[in-house]
Amino acid sequence: MNHDFTIPSLGDAKIESPIPYSQVRGDDLANYVNDNEMVIFDVNVHDAPVTRDYPREALIECAGPRQRIFFPPGHVHAGIVTCGGLCPGLNDVVRSITRCLWYRYGLRRITGIRFGYPGLLPESAQPTVELTPDFVDDIHKIGGTVLGSSRGGGNRTEDLVDAVERLNINMLFTIGGDGTQKGSLAIAKEIDKRGHKIAVVGIPKTIDNDFSFIERSFGFETAVGEATKVVSAAHAEANSAPNGIGLVKVMGRDSGFIAAHTALASHDVNFVLIPEVPFALEGDNGLLAHLKARLDRRQHAVILVAEGAGQDLLPENDATDASGNKRLGDIGTFLKQEINRHFGEIGMPVTLKYIDPSYTIRSAVAAPTDAVYCSRLGNNAVHAAMAGKTQMIIGMIHDTFVHIPMEIAVSKRRTVEPEGNLWRDVLEATHQPVQMV
Amino acid sequence: MNHDFTIPSLGDAKIESPIPYSQVRGDDLANYVNDNEMVIFDVNVHDAPVTRDYPREALIECAGPRQRIFFPPGHVHAGIVTCGGLCPGLNDVVRSITRCLWYRYGLRRITGIRFGYPGLLPESAQPTVELTPDFVDDIHKIGGTVLGSSRGGGNRTEDLVDAVERLNINMLFTIGGDGTQKGSLAIAKEIDKRGHKIAVVGIPKTIDNDFSFIERSFGFETAVGEATKVVSAAHAEANSAPNGIGLVKVMGRDSGFIAAHTALASHDVNFVLIPEVPFALEGDNGLLAHLKARLDRRQHAVILVAEGAGQDLLPENDATDASGNKRLGDIGTFLKQEINRHFGEIGMPVTLKYIDPSYTIRSAVAAPTDAVYCSRLGNNAVHAAMAGKTQMIIGMIHDTFVHIPMEIAVSKRRTVEPEGNLWRDVLEATHQPVQMV
Amino acid sequence: MNHDFTIPSLGDAKIESPIPYSQVRGDDLANYVNDNEMVIFDVNVHDAPVTRDYPREALIECAGPRQRIFFPPGHVHAGIVTCGGLCPGLNDVVRSITRCLWYRYGLRRITGIRFGYPGLLPESAQPTVELTPDFVDDIHKIGGTVLGSSRGGGNRTEDLVDAVERLNINMLFTIGGDGTQKGSLAIAKEIDKRGHKIAVVGIPKTIDNDFSFIERSFGFETAVGEATKVVSAAHAEANSAPNGIGLVKVMGRDSGFIAAHTALASHDVNFVLIPEVPFALEGDNGLLAHLKARLDRRQHAVILVAEGAGQDLLPENDATDASGNKRLGDIGTFLKQEINRHFGEIGMPVTLKYIDPSYTIRSAVAAPTDAVYCSRLGNNAVHAAMAGKTQMIIGMIHDTFVHIPMEIAVSKRRTVEPEGNLWRDVLEATHQPVQMV
Amino acid sequence: MNHDFTIPSLGDAKIESPIPYSQVRGDDLANYVNDNEMVIFDVNVHDAPVTRDYPREALIECAGPRQRIFFPPGHVHAGIVTCGGLCPGLNDVVRSITRCLWYRYGLRRITGIRFGYPGLLPESAQPTVELTPDFVDDIHKIGGTVLGSSRGGGNRTEDLVDAVERLNINMLFTIGGDGTQKGSLAIAKEIDKRGHKIAVVGIPKTIDNDFSFIERSFGFETAVGEATKVVSAAHAEANSAPNGIGLVKVMGRDSGFIAAHTALASHDVNFVLIPEVPFALEGDNGLLAHLKARLDRRQHAVILVAEGAGQDLLPENDATDASGNKRLGDIGTFLKQEINRHFGEIGMPVTLKYIDPSYTIRSAVAAPTDAVYCSRLGNNAVHAAMAGKTQMIIGMIHDTFVHIPMEIAVSKRRTVEPEGNLWRDVLEATHQPVQMV
Repeated sequence: MNHDFTIPSLGDAKIESPIPYSQVRGDDLANYVNDNEMVIFDVNVHDAPVTRDYPREALIECAGPRQRIFFPPGHVHAGIVTCGGLCPGLNDVVRSITRCLWYRYGLRRITGIRFGYPGLLPESAQPTVELTPDFVDDIHKIGGTVLGSSRGGGNRTEDLVDAVERLNINMLFTIGGDGTQKGSLAIAKEIDKRGHKIAVVGIPKTIDNDFSFIERSFGFETAVGEATKVVSAAHAEANSAPNGIGLVKVMGRDSGFIAAHTALASHDVNFVLIPEVPFALEGDNGLLAHLKARLDRRQHAVILVAEGAGQDLLPENDATDASGNKRLGDIGTFLKQEINRHFGEIGMPVTLKYIDPSYTIRSAVAAPTDAVYCSRLGNNAVHAAMAGKTQMIIGMIHDTFVHIPMEIAVSKRRTVEPEGNLWRDVLEATHQPVQMV
Repeated sequence: MNHDFTIPSLGDAKIESPIPYSQVRGDDLANYVNDNEMVIFDVNVHDAPVTRDYPREALIECAGPRQRIFFPPGHVHAGIVTCGGLCPGLNDVVRSITRCLWYRYGLRRITGIRFGYPGLLPESAQPTVELTPDFVDDIHKIGGTVLGSSRGGGNRTEDLVDAVERLNINMLFTIGGDGTQKGSLAIAKEIDKRGHKIAVVGIPKTIDNDFSFIERSFGFETAVGEATKVVSAAHAEANSAPNGIGLVKVMGRDSGFIAAHTALASHDVNFVLIPEVPFALEGDNGLLAHLKARLDRRQHAVILVAEGAGQDLLPENDATDASGNKRLGDIGTFLKQEINRHFGEIGMPVTLKYIDPSYTIRSAVAAPTDAVYCSRLGNNAVHAAMAGKTQMIIGMIHDTFVHIPMEIAVSKRRTVEPEGNLWRDVLEATHQPVQMV
Repeated sequence: MNHDFTIPSLGDAKIESPIPYSQVRGDDLANYVNDNEMVIFDVNVHDAPVTRDYPREALIECAGPRQRIFFPPGHVHAGIVTCGGLCPGLNDVVRSITRCLWYRYGLRRITGIRFGYPGLLPESAQPTVELTPDFVDDIHKIGGTVLGSSRGGGNRTEDLVDAVERLNINMLFTIGGDGTQKGSLAIAKEIDKRGHKIAVVGIPKTIDNDFSFIERSFGFETAVGEATKVVSAAHAEANSAPNGIGLVKVMGRDSGFIAAHTALASHDVNFVLIPEVPFALEGDNGLLAHLKARLDRRQHAVILVAEGAGQDLLPENDATDASGNKRLGDIGTFLKQEINRHFGEIGMPVTLKYIDPSYTIRSAVAAPTDAVYCSRLGNNAVHAAMAGKTQMIIGMIHDTFVHIPMEIAVSKRRTVEPEGNLWRDVLEATHQPVQMV
Repeated sequence: MNHDFTIPSLGDAKIESPIPYSQVRGDDLANYVNDNEMVIFDVNVHDAPVTRDYPREALIECAGPRQRIFFPPGHVHAGIVTCGGLCPGLNDVVRSITRCLWYRYGLRRITGIRFGYPGLLPESAQPTVELTPDFVDDIHKIGGTVLGSSRGGGNRTEDLVDAVERLNINMLFTIGGDGTQKGSLAIAKEIDKRGHKIAVVGIPKTIDNDFSFIERSFGFETAVGEATKVVSAAHAEANSAPNGIGLVKVMGRDSGFIAAHTALASHDVNFVLIPEVPFALEGDNGLLAHLKARLDRRQHAVILVAEGAGQDLLPENDATDASGNKRLGDIGTFLKQEINRHFGEIGMPVTLKYIDPSYTIRSAVAAPTDAVYCSRLGNNAVHAAMAGKTQMIIGMIHDTFVHIPMEIAVSKRRTVEPEGNLWRDVLEATHQPVQMV
C-alpha cells in the first residue's frame, strides 16, 4: 500500500491569515497548523521490534488554519453544493463552512448551489441561494439539506466547470459521496487544465461509513442511533407474537458498518447479515435452519440485514441509479418472502414484521456526536481551501483531522473485515454462527 | 515519553479457548488475536522524512480473544465491582462482562459486589449479587449501576485482598476511575505478593474523558449529548429575558472535554471556561468585560463552565472527598454571584439562570454510541482476564481496543491542549477571545 | 341517542375493602367512590335556556375503589389477556392491573394468558405466565406486550369459557379493541348463562382512538408523537429534493384521528387524507391538481394519509384478517403509484418518498402522557372487577374515569366529524381545500 | 357556584368572514361556530334521577370561527405579548396566532411586544418585532419565547393602555398566567372606559395547570414528560448508592398537578409532597419515619416535592416577586437539610441527591401533545378576537375549546383535590400513607 498523500496546491500561500493565532508552541495560545505536521497512517505492528521509514509522501498532512493563506479573503466567492442521498449532518456542515468563511475569514460572498451538481448545469432553472450567518444559524435543527440534493450530473465535467466560471466562484466545497468526489476530482483537474485558480475541497459524505482513509464519516453515529430504535421496535414486534420474527433492513451497499454497530448498540439482534460475509439460506448451516433453531429455543428472533447483503442470492439485474451505482436487489423483501415460504412449507406458523426505515434514518437531525464532528469538518475544509489546497477531502485519522488527496480517497471502499475485531464483537453479541454457508 | 507497555501475566496460557475462532488469516473467518499484534502509540510526525524504531515494550498490545487461555473456565469465579461516581454505561459494561463470561467461556459463578470497594470490607453488611444473563439482560435500559457504587475504600488493600480470597474469586473486574484503578493496582500487587493467581482487570471509567492513553472513555458521548440539551435550555432562558444570561456547569475536574465538546455540539455557547485555560474576571480582557460586550451586542449570552475551571479565583479550601480527590470550590455559584454583583454595580440589569445538571447527566442511560463501546469494552476485558493478563485496563487507541498497564494508565491525566485543534475549534465555534487574562 | 348505561353486576358487594380510604367528604382523606357518583354524557347545548332530565340509566357511573367489594381477595384468581395489534402502553396496563391486584387487594394468583384469545384455546400449547410485581416492575420500559398478542379466536366463545373455567379464573381482564370486546361480551354472557360468578372487565385498546364513549384511548398520544417524528423525516426528504413529495401512511382504519392530530402537531403537512372525508384524485378540484399547485408554488409537499382513506378509489377486495376486519386496500402504495404516474404523464419530474412507519409506531414505549393514563386505567379496571362489575369497559369521559357497558361501547365507532372543530383546525393548519372532490 | 359566563363584546359582528366555511349542518363541510353553541360546565351528578335548568349565562360559549366578524381584516393591527415565567409551547402559540391572522384573515400588521408588559412601558427601550409567517415558521422548534418575557408591569394599567393606543393596536393577545390575565382585564376595562374598540383576548399560561375552568393548560404535558426523565435520573442515583435518596423538586406553587402526574408517569416515586396535602416531618407518622421504613425495606427511595408543598414547615418570609406572587420558601433545600440532619442524628448514613430541574423543564420544546393544543388555542383566540369578543380567555372544557370571561378565570385557582381520584391514584402508585401528619 504505497500511497502518495501529497496534497495538490494552487500556489504559494503568501497572505497573512486574518485569524489571530499564535505561531509559537508553549505560550498556551491556540496555534496555527504547519504543513509539516503529519500523522502516520498504519499503526499496526506484527513483528516487533521493528524499524520503519516514513518518507514525507507516505505521511498524511494535518488539517487546520495556516498562518499564511492563498486567497485574499476580500476576493473570494465560495460555492457549496450537497450531492447524492440524504445523510444526517448535511446542514451542520453547510452551517459550519458558511460561518467559518464569514466570521473567521470575513467572506461576504457565499453561494449555495441548489439540488446538487444538476443545479449547476445549463438546463437547470434553479436559482442559487445566498448563504449568510442569518440563513444558516438554525438549519442544524432540521434534517435533510437546505440546499437540496440530487444524484447524477457529476460526469458533465466541462459543463460544471463552465458553470463555476460563470458564477465566478473561486472556492468550491462539494459535500457528497464517492461518486461526488470522483466528479469533484474531474472538475478540479479540468479547472487546472484551464489554468484557473479555483480550490475544490470535498467533505466526504457516506452514511455507510465506507470511505477509505477515513475513520468515521459524519451522520454515521446518528444513523446507528436511529437504527437502534427501529431494532427495538422490531424486537417488541417479534417478542409479542408467537414465533415472531422482526426483520430490519438498514443502509450498507458494500459495507455493513451500520448493521454491525446497530447490533452492538441494540443488544436485541440475533442475526446480522452484511455484504462482506456471504450466507446461505438453505442447508443445515443456512440462515433458515439457524432461524428455526432460534425460534424453537426462544420463540422469537430479530434479523438485521444491510441492503447490500446476500446479493448473490437474488436474481440478476443490471440496473443503475442516476449516480451510476448498481441498483441493488431488494434483499429485505426477498428474505421476507423466503422466510415466510420456508416456514409455510414446514408447517410452522411464524409472524414476520419487516421494517425498512431508510428514509427516517437518513433524514434525521444530527446527534450531538455528529454535530461536533460536522462542525469541525466544516472549519477544517475552510482552512484548507483558504490555504490554496485543492483536489483533497477532509478526513479524520487517529482522531486527527487531516487532508487526503481525492485521488486516493476514491480509489477503494472501506469494508467490515470478516476476520477483524468489529465483526468478532458482533458475533459475540448476537451469538450467531461464525459462518452460515 | 519512554513507557513500558508490557502487560503482566499470571502465567502461561495453555488451555484451548472454548470459542471456535480461526487461527488463519485469509479464510474469512473471525480470528483469535495474538499477543504480538500491537499498535504504535505516537502517530504524530513533525520532521519528515524520519525513521523510527519500535522496540516491543514501546508498542501497545491489542485486545481480543486469545487461542489459548490461562484459566480453566469451569474453575473460574469472577467478581465485578463498580466504584466512584455514576457514569452512563456502567450497566452496559456489567452486562457485557457477564454475558461474555457466561456464553462465550461457559462460566457459571459471577458475583457482583454491592456499592463499590466498601462492599468488600469486613464491616460491610452488603450481600453480593449472583450475576446471570437473566439478571443482566435488560439492565442497560436503566441508568446508574445495578451493583451500586460508592467512593473510597480502595486504599484498604489488605482487607480487600482478604475479601477477594474469602469469596474465592480468581478474576476481578474493577470498573472505576483513576482512584479505583490505583486501588486495583495495589490489590493486584498484594495478590501477587501473596502468590495467588487472581487476574485483576480494570475498565476505566471517567465521564470527564481524562484517562491517559485512552482516546475516549465510556459515557462521555452520552454526557455530551445530555449536556447539549441543557445548554439548549440555558439558551432558551437567556434568549427569552432582557440581558438574559444562561450559565451551565458541567463535569470536568481537571479536563474540559465535556465542556469543549458540548460547545461544539450545541452551537449556542458564547463562553467556554475549562480548567486548562485560565481566565480573569475583571479587567479589560476579563470575562465580565467580554460578557458585557456580548450583551450590548446581542442582549443574551450563554456561559458553559467546567467544574474545575477558575479554581484560582475561588477562596482556598483543603477539603477532599471519600475518593481522596480535592474538593473543588463551586465555580458555578461563584460565577453566578460575581456576574450578578458586577452588573448590579454598573447598573445594568441582567437575568441570570444557573443550571447545574450533573446528576441528570451522569445517571443517563447510555446513548447508542456508548452502548456499542461498553459492549466491546466488556468483551475485551473478559478475553484479557481469561488469558491470564492482570494489572491492566482495557483502552482504545487509534480505534483499536488495547491492553494498557495500570501502572502507566494512572500515572497522569489527559487534558485539553490549549494549543491543540480541539480547543481551537471551540474558539472558532464560540468566537470567544483566545485569551481572557 | 337513548343509551342505557347501567352496569351489570355479579351480585351484592358485601365485603369490606382492604384499602383504607375514607367514607366522608371533607376530612381531606382520599375517598371511596359510590355507585351513585355519575357524569352527564352529552354536554352540548344549542338552545339555551333549557331544562334537562337525567334519569339514572342515562348517566354514566364513575370508576374508582368501592368501600364494599364482591370478591373475597383471598379467593380470587385473576387472568389478563392482550389481544389484537400492538399499541403503546399495553405493558403499562398489564403492570398496573397486576400491581393494584397485588398490593391493594392482596391477590397472589394473577395469570397472564399468552398470545391473546388463541392462547386459551384447547389446541394452544402456550403455557401461561405467573404475574407478580417482580415480573411486571420494569415491563413499561419495553414496547409490545410481554404477554404476547394475536388476532382472532374471540368468536370461539364456548371454548374460551371452558378454558377460563379450567384455569379456575374468576376475574378476567381483556385488553383489546372492538373485536376483542365483542368477544369479551359474548364470554361474559356465556358465563352468566352457565351461572358462574366471573367478572369480565375490558380495557379498550385502539391506537386509532375510535372507541365510542371514550374521549381518548391509551397509546394514542404516543402514536401521534411517533408519527410526528416520521412526518419531520418526510418533510426533510421533500424539502431536500426538486419537487420533493413526502408521503406518509399512518394508522386509522375508520377514523382519521392519528392523521389529524399529527398534522396539527407537526406543522409540516400540506394534505391530510382521512376515511371520513372523501377526496378525488383527478379533476380540477382533485388531490393531484392541488398537489401540482402546491409544488408550483413551493417546490415540495407533504401528504399524510390514514390507512382507511380513499378506499373507494381502490380496486374492490373482499379479504378479511383474523380479527374479522375487512382487509383494507393499500392506499399508500396506490397514491405513490398514481402520483408518480400523473406527474410522469404531464412531464413534471417529482421525487416521491413513501414512508409506512406502522410497526415502529405501534411498538413504541408509552410516552409519559400515556403512561399516566394506562396506570390509571389499570387501577380502575381492578376496582371495578373487585366490586363485582362485569360486561363493562373502563373509559374516560370529561376527564373522569367511568364504567361503560360493553354492549354500548362496541355498538359503533367514533370518527372525526368533518363539520367539527378538530377537522376545521386541521384545515387551518394545512391550508388544504375544505373539499377535494 | 353561580357564575355568569357571558362574554363581553365590542359590538355587533357584521362583516362577512373571509374564511369560506359552511353554514349548514349535514353537508359534510367544515362549519362556522354560532354564539349559541355552548357546553355545560358541571357534569357531576350525585342524586339521579335529577332535572337541571341551564340558563344561558350558566353555559359556556364554544370557541371557533364565526360567520360574521367585528373587525374589517384590512384595518386590524394585532399585538402579541408573552408574560411571566417560561412555559413549553409559548412559541407554538405565537406562531399559531400569527399564521391564523395572516393566512385566514389576511392581516399584514402583527406586532410582537418584547419582554412582556414592561416592553410596552414608556421607559422601555425595546423595539417591537414585526411578525410574519417567515419569522414564525420554525420558532416552535426552540424553547422559551422569541418575543422574550418578564414579570411585572401588569399593574401599570394606564401606561399600558397609552402604549397600546400609541402603537395603534386594536387587538391584543396576552399570553400569560393568572397575574397577566388580571392585568389584561384591567387593560380591557380601561380601554372600554376610554371608549376604544380594542379586543383583549388572553391565552392562559400556567405550567402548574392551575387555571380554574380549564381542564389542561399548554406546556403541562411537556413539563410532566421532562420531570419524568428527571425522576428516572433521581431513581438511578438513589438505586446506585447505599441508602440512596433521590429528591426532586418540581413546579407547583399552589397546585401539585405536575408532581402528581409525574409520579403516575414515572412509576419510580415513593413519596409525593404537594401543597394541597399537608405533611409532618417528625413523629411516628411523619415523612422521616416513613422514609426510614422505606430505606430499611428497600435501601433506596425517591421523593418528589412540588415547590409550594410544606410551606408551613419553613421559616416565615414575606417576600414577593415582580409578578406580585409570594416568594416561596425553598422546600427542596429544606428537605435535603432536614433529611440529612435526621439520618445523621440516628446514625444511619444516607446518600441524598437533590435535583431542581425547573429551568430545563420550563424551557423545553413543546411535546407533540402540547404542540397540537397550542396550535388550536392560537386559532381559537384569533377567531374570538376577530369576532369582537374581549375580556376573555381561551380554555378547554370537556374536550371543547371555549370562551371564558377573564373575570371568572382569575377568580380562583384549580388545585389537586385530596379526596379526588387523581390523588387517590397517586397514593395507589406510590403506596405512600394516605396521611403523614
